[in-house]
Amino acid sequence: MKLVTFQTQSTNTLPKLGAWIDGDRIVDLTEVAADMSQFFEQNCIADAQGYIERTDLSDAAVPVADVQLLAPFPCPASLRDFGVFKTHMDAAARITGKEISPEWFKLPNYYRGSTSPSSIAGHETLVTWPNYTQKLDFELEWGVYIGKTGKNISVAEASEYIAGYTIYNDISARDIQFRHMTLALGPAKGKDFDNSNIMGPCLVTPDEIGDPYNLRMIARVNGEVWADGNTSDMYYSFEEMISFVSQSETLHPGEFLGSGTVGKGCGWELDRWIQPGDVVELEVENIGMIRNQIGEPEVNPAEWTEKGL
Amino acid sequence: MKLVTFQTQSTNTLPKLGAWIDGDRIVDLTEVAADMSQFFEQNCIADAQGYIERTDLSDAAVPVADVQLLAPFPCPASLRDFGVFKTHMDAAARITGKEISPEWFKLPNYYRGSTSPSSIAGHETLVTWPNYTQKLDFELEWGVYIGKTGKNISVAEASEYIAGYTIYNDISARDIQFRHMTLALGPAKGKDFDNSNIMGPCLVTPDEIGDPYNLRMIARVNGEVWADGNTSDMYYSFEEMISFVSQSETLHPGEFLGSGTVGKGCGWELDRWIQPGDVVELEVENIGMIRNQIGEPEVNPAEWTEKGL
Repeated sequence: MKLVTFQTQSTNTLPKLGAWIDGDRIVDLTEVAADMSQFFEQNCIADAQGYIERTDLSDAAVPVADVQLLAPFPCPASLRDFGVFKTHMDAAARITGKEISPEWFKLPNYYRGSTSPSSIAGHETLVTWPNYTQKLDFELEWGVYIGKTGKNISVAEASEYIAGYTIYNDISARDIQFRHMTLALGPAKGKDFDNSNIMGPCLVTPDEIGDPYNLRMIARVNGEVWADGNTSDMYYSFEEMISFVSQSETLHPGEFLGSGTVGKGCGWELDRWIQPGDVVELEVENIGMIRNQIGEPEVNPAEWTEKGL
Repeated sequence: MKLVTFQTQSTNTLPKLGAWIDGDRIVDLTEVAADMSQFFEQNCIADAQGYIERTDLSDAAVPVADVQLLAPFPCPASLRDFGVFKTHMDAAARITGKEISPEWFKLPNYYRGSTSPSSIAGHETLVTWPNYTQKLDFELEWGVYIGKTGKNISVAEASEYIAGYTIYNDISARDIQFRHMTLALGPAKGKDFDNSNIMGPCLVTPDEIGDPYNLRMIARVNGEVWADGNTSDMYYSFEEMISFVSQSETLHPGEFLGSGTVGKGCGWELDRWIQPGDVVELEVENIGMIRNQIGEPEVNPAEWTEKGL
């Protein structure tokens, strides 16, 4: 099943839960669950399938073109982004001149990102260009949402905790990101700004994803292919990441685990830089595509001044 | 005003909002606001003062000893922890043999921590000893909660966005923390586990904190003073941190910004290590004290195994 959180464009209604069915139509699932969190907390997949089967879809379904698709979880319970693609790590080592830490091969590493409703965005949302960066970048990623509560989950059991998969564009301000990372605490304002975490267009449940570790991933900028990779390059599986983070830590429905960037899946690796007005499309096989235009640089009269300047 | 989120010990009731008044009593503020978020979203301080003045406290107030104090926001809207104490940075440089990055002097640096209800804990909660660490540590910190929505906030205006102050014990698994930090993405499982973010015992509003940049901070382990510092050692003020993070990013009520560790405010700096059963007390002048006992190491039959082992 492909699940979405959507708003109708005609009126400024509250977000609704829906299913994306054949023929590119959206079925309103409000009668099954109020939102994505409740859908997984109450394990509503069978209910939703039954509802769709017995409903007259000529009335109840609307064309996907007529709705706005939000991130599947507009306010995820947490956001962790890993970095598990080996080709991306090799590129980083080449660019920075620093060898990959031996720890990368032993432990799945991640930072936590913003789950603010101002930070999480969906398909067709305008990308914020922060007032403090000259080097904005996209990242071609994907990730999983946790579907049920658990702790100390084994790798073998971890697949039961995957609610589904989505595409993730981890918008990054590279200049300030790498300045922050000299302190080893993570990317900080390099990843934290409005609309910086773009997810969608839907959540694909595990039964419809196929082999999750053999999916093509493509990034296009203004229609030109910049990146063409495959999930087979992941050094850690999502099952290994889930098992790892669940050690002595309770996971809850709606937590998100991102893969990190696929090899060549960002401008930094390619030394090609997106500009205001560009349109970025990220595609992952068996999920779909998210498209977002890059906004104009924000201007702030009270811009923060670096200490000592 | 000193605000608390509390539960009565006798029954397993839902958390309530309260005020901590003279004579160490708690007044139930349920009639003023449902919880801490609503209290600040609706700017209820004057209402709360009025309610306390016209209420017969001999009936409505209970001894603080009779309630369980949760973290002021049991589920903060975000958690960022900075590292702004110069003495702590000097100690880190001495221990690691690495000079402080020049960026530390120009930009406030932070990582994001867990806001999961399983991770946020309060006064007297047992500290989780994760199944994967041999070096558990406390950190003597404090922090502010954001009280209203804003973006691109100037340093001069930032104090208006501070809802109040609290004490923060940032429990850390040092062995795995420093392994993760070789990847520069942040502490990861070094800070992420159940009950790892301990806050309380109350939120002190700005009118009652005095000079926030001249407050004594003390850590005791089993009654012995291990650390005795002062907030005057902060290189960045909370106002500077708020202005910085609000650049091109909307802040919301209930977001938390931690100071990082005061000089000598953790076992790592002192090379003294807490053990299961120890009792850690953190005190910050004009706020109060949080006390937590360290639990026994967790055991997990399905412990995650490092790749390659």
